[in-house]
Amino acid sequence: MKLNCDLGESFGAWQMGLDDQVMPHIDMANIACGFHAGDADVMAQTLALAARHKVTIGAHPSYPDKQGFGRRSMALSADELNNCLHYQIAAIEGMAKVHGLSLSYVKPHGALYNDMMADERILESVITAIASYSKNLKLMILATANGKKHQELAKKHEVTLILEAFADRQYTDQGHLVSRKVPGSVHGKTALIAQVKQLLNDGSVTTQSGNKLTLNADSLCVHGDNADGIALISEIKALCQKS
Amino acid sequence: MKLNCDLGESFGAWQMGLDDQVMPHIDMANIACGFHAGDADVMAQTLALAARHKVTIGAHPSYPDKQGFGRRSMALSADELNNCLHYQIAAIEGMAKVHGLSLSYVKPHGALYNDMMADERILESVITAIASYSKNLKLMILATANGKKHQELAKKHEVTLILEAFADRQYTDQGHLVSRKVPGSVHGKTALIAQVKQLLNDGSVTTQSGNKLTLNADSLCVHGDNADGIALISEIKALCQKS
Amino acid sequence: MKLNCDLGESFGAWQMGLDDQVMPHIDMANIACGFHAGDADVMAQTLALAARHKVTIGAHPSYPDKQGFGRRSMALSADELNNCLHYQIAAIEGMAKVHGLSLSYVKPHGALYNDMMADERILESVITAIASYSKNLKLMILATANGKKHQELAKKHEVTLILEAFADRQYTDQGHLVSRKVPGSVHGKTALIAQVKQLLNDGSVTTQSGNKLTLNADSLCVHGDNADGIALISEIKALCQKS
Amino acid sequence: MKLNCDLGESFGAWQMGLDDQVMPHIDMANIACGFHAGDADVMAQTLALAARHKVTIGAHPSYPDKQGFGRRSMALSADELNNCLHYQIAAIEGMAKVHGLSLSYVKPHGALYNDMMADERILESVITAIASYSKNLKLMILATANGKKHQELAKKHEVTLILEAFADRQYTDQGHLVSRKVPGSVHGKTALIAQVKQLLNDGSVTTQSGNKLTLNADSLCVHGDNADGIALISEIKALCQKS
Repeated sequence: MKLNCDLGESFGAWQMGLDDQVMPHIDMANIACGFHAGDADVMAQTLALAARHKVTIGAHPSYPDKQGFGRRSMALSADELNNCLHYQIAAIEGMAKVHGLSLSYVKPHGALYNDMMADERILESVITAIASYSKNLKLMILATANGKKHQELAKKHEVTLILEAFADRQYTDQGHLVSRKVPGSVHGKTALIAQVKQLLNDGSVTTQSGNKLTLNADSLCVHGDNADGIALISEIKALCQKS
Repeated sequence: MKLNCDLGESFGAWQMGLDDQVMPHIDMANIACGFHAGDADVMAQTLALAARHKVTIGAHPSYPDKQGFGRRSMALSADELNNCLHYQIAAIEGMAKVHGLSLSYVKPHGALYNDMMADERILESVITAIASYSKNLKLMILATANGKKHQELAKKHEVTLILEAFADRQYTDQGHLVSRKVPGSVHGKTALIAQVKQLLNDGSVTTQSGNKLTLNADSLCVHGDNADGIALISEIKALCQKS
Repeated sequence: MKLNCDLGESFGAWQMGLDDQVMPHIDMANIACGFHAGDADVMAQTLALAARHKVTIGAHPSYPDKQGFGRRSMALSADELNNCLHYQIAAIEGMAKVHGLSLSYVKPHGALYNDMMADERILESVITAIASYSKNLKLMILATANGKKHQELAKKHEVTLILEAFADRQYTDQGHLVSRKVPGSVHGKTALIAQVKQLLNDGSVTTQSGNKLTLNADSLCVHGDNADGIALISEIKALCQKS
Repeated sequence: MKLNCDLGESFGAWQMGLDDQVMPHIDMANIACGFHAGDADVMAQTLALAARHKVTIGAHPSYPDKQGFGRRSMALSADELNNCLHYQIAAIEGMAKVHGLSLSYVKPHGALYNDMMADERILESVITAIASYSKNLKLMILATANGKKHQELAKKHEVTLILEAFADRQYTDQGHLVSRKVPGSVHGKTALIAQVKQLLNDGSVTTQSGNKLTLNADSLCVHGDNADGIALISEIKALCQKS
């Protein structure tokens, strides 16, 4: 089970995330491409850090909305979405080469991620954008009860999926994340560790309604926003290595 | 003598340049990368057009200043300039691959172009940015009386230069362009055609003060903003093919 | 019947609209505030032009999306929409004072205009944003079959509405504009002039399905994108003055 | 002696500064206007905070360069600078009215501040921009050895100056701040408190070269970036109240 984390989300004079402390612990870095966060300087620093720690890198593209941190849905046409993804993927891929890195995958960010999981037409737009960009890029999406359907859609376009699960979030029976606005939707430490163990040992989560849902996740998304988060990542990492 | 032209300078709903009409006549398209002009959609359209007409493509990066169209100097540090160039070059290079094109060269835009020609430290920053990005990218700069010095600087970093001349602009004795604000600095049609002929036949221009200046230019920069410009490009093209 | 027109939609080096030619013919100028179009320089020029022609001015605020020209819906929260409107209204109001003008009304642009007409919660957010900004600002919205309901909602917040009709667009029976994508939805000259006459003489339009719909519009929206548009505006203006 | 502080420099999801903790201690808040920092949401929050603590507010406009935090010089024309200032001043002034506040002064930010202090033509552009905007806005600039000359220039355009001094920065004999890059240019706590006392009791600073320079400052600029800064502000505030 690989750990992935959103990184490179500082912008200009503004810092976000403890990238230096997170990078040594993770396997896959989802790097912002300058549309919701990051800029050319932040990207260069994040790529250098990833190279130093031999971390696999992915593009973390977004709707073009820096003020909203890519968290607000935007009604882009399929063509606009395609070009918007190509631009961001190209920018990070080319800068990665400077650091001797090659881009492995794409994980859409924020509202685009949510929209893609909620609307299969948007998911297909994302898949075809990746397919038309390169034969070697994988797509990271949420592992849900629809995993098989998503795999088939991706296979149709010859794109490989990476399915990710969340350690800290409660799930619906369909395998979607319960909105952060719902009380109890973000796990405390005990529930989080329990969810990680269940994912590692049984490939499943226990949903909001108490049901067991099999997820077959390839990767676990972790967060490195503060010191507590970093400590948790170490602990999760240790659990992954044991299993 | 190759003809080069700045293209892809529309943005969102705003049109600029008659790209469809220019592309058939030119050899090299300098394509805006989204910092002074262009966006992901415009870049995709411009690259498709270049592919259709088998035109060699170059990145046309700029200071990050869309409202000022990249025409205002900005005091970027050497690192900021390096990353800002890498980002733009990467974006157009990656998008070009989607259209089966590979990027051949870089021509800085506007104030960055002027600053690079006026300050050798900025020129060296641009050269090292290109050298660190790829061994295969050339740099297009202004052919001036300092051509040899520039060639040596570029050679030091293993970057090949493309020297360009302007058909429509008056030159100083040093081979710099006389500011557009000076009356007579932009040639009318007769003087323009004469300058093209002199460049083609003698490799020189007659400067503002009446002296002959040898330029050894590899390429001629033309403009396709309006119908008159398109007609001139055809005429210049015919002169080049004859010579 | 007052004529209103969207103006000040150039941006930086990019021109849009024949503002100089439109301004003499209209009564109300909806001026872009820099979020979908316009910038500080364009706004200053447009305000100077409005002052010269003694045209009433309104703010023409938008979602923050210059690349998309404000034509793509964005999921702003009510608070974000409120602040985003206040910022744009404030910017144009303050700059107007420099030209001896005072701001009379607000007409949302593009996707925000459509969203407001389609979703009463968004309309109420717009109304309360205006009410909290100033007691003296009116709101311009589309005259529809729901005109009375809209008037009541606005009255609740002590905001005065200006109801506008479109000369060139076909209407649904509910008084919404038929999408531009539908063939026949944008009138040719004859149908346009007929629609203007019916609006002036009968206060109604004939809808897509052939029904008569009373609109009670206060203003007519015209477009000045090209020479044909300008000619039409003159003609419409003459009809208005006769009636 | 009034304390002034730069506030409202968060942006979107990115936090900067401990505005909540600074506001109770200061007299004048220089509020970012969205060009180098801040956005409509941050401005609304900062204005509400200023209103709660009855703090005098000023506009803190900048060159349009969010990625560079307004710290990079940009070659704006006098007209562009004028309009760019009007836009930002208008935005914050109008939003301030919503919170029952009226704008008192303008303090340019970062590179614009430095450029204005280094080049009298830019200072005069700033002064005339303020004069043309309103008769009631003051301009805050650095108190230097040129204070009288600056006062005369401002008087010519009927603008009142507020002269500010810095507690934590070393001065040249001309009253300019020694660059942060020079070792020793930013005072530790002891030297800072000594400089505040000298400013309060003697109206002077001791310069880099050991000379005494009279400054006649009206205000002292303080920083609230972290807990140490907040503690220092309290201490400086106490010294001001004693004197």
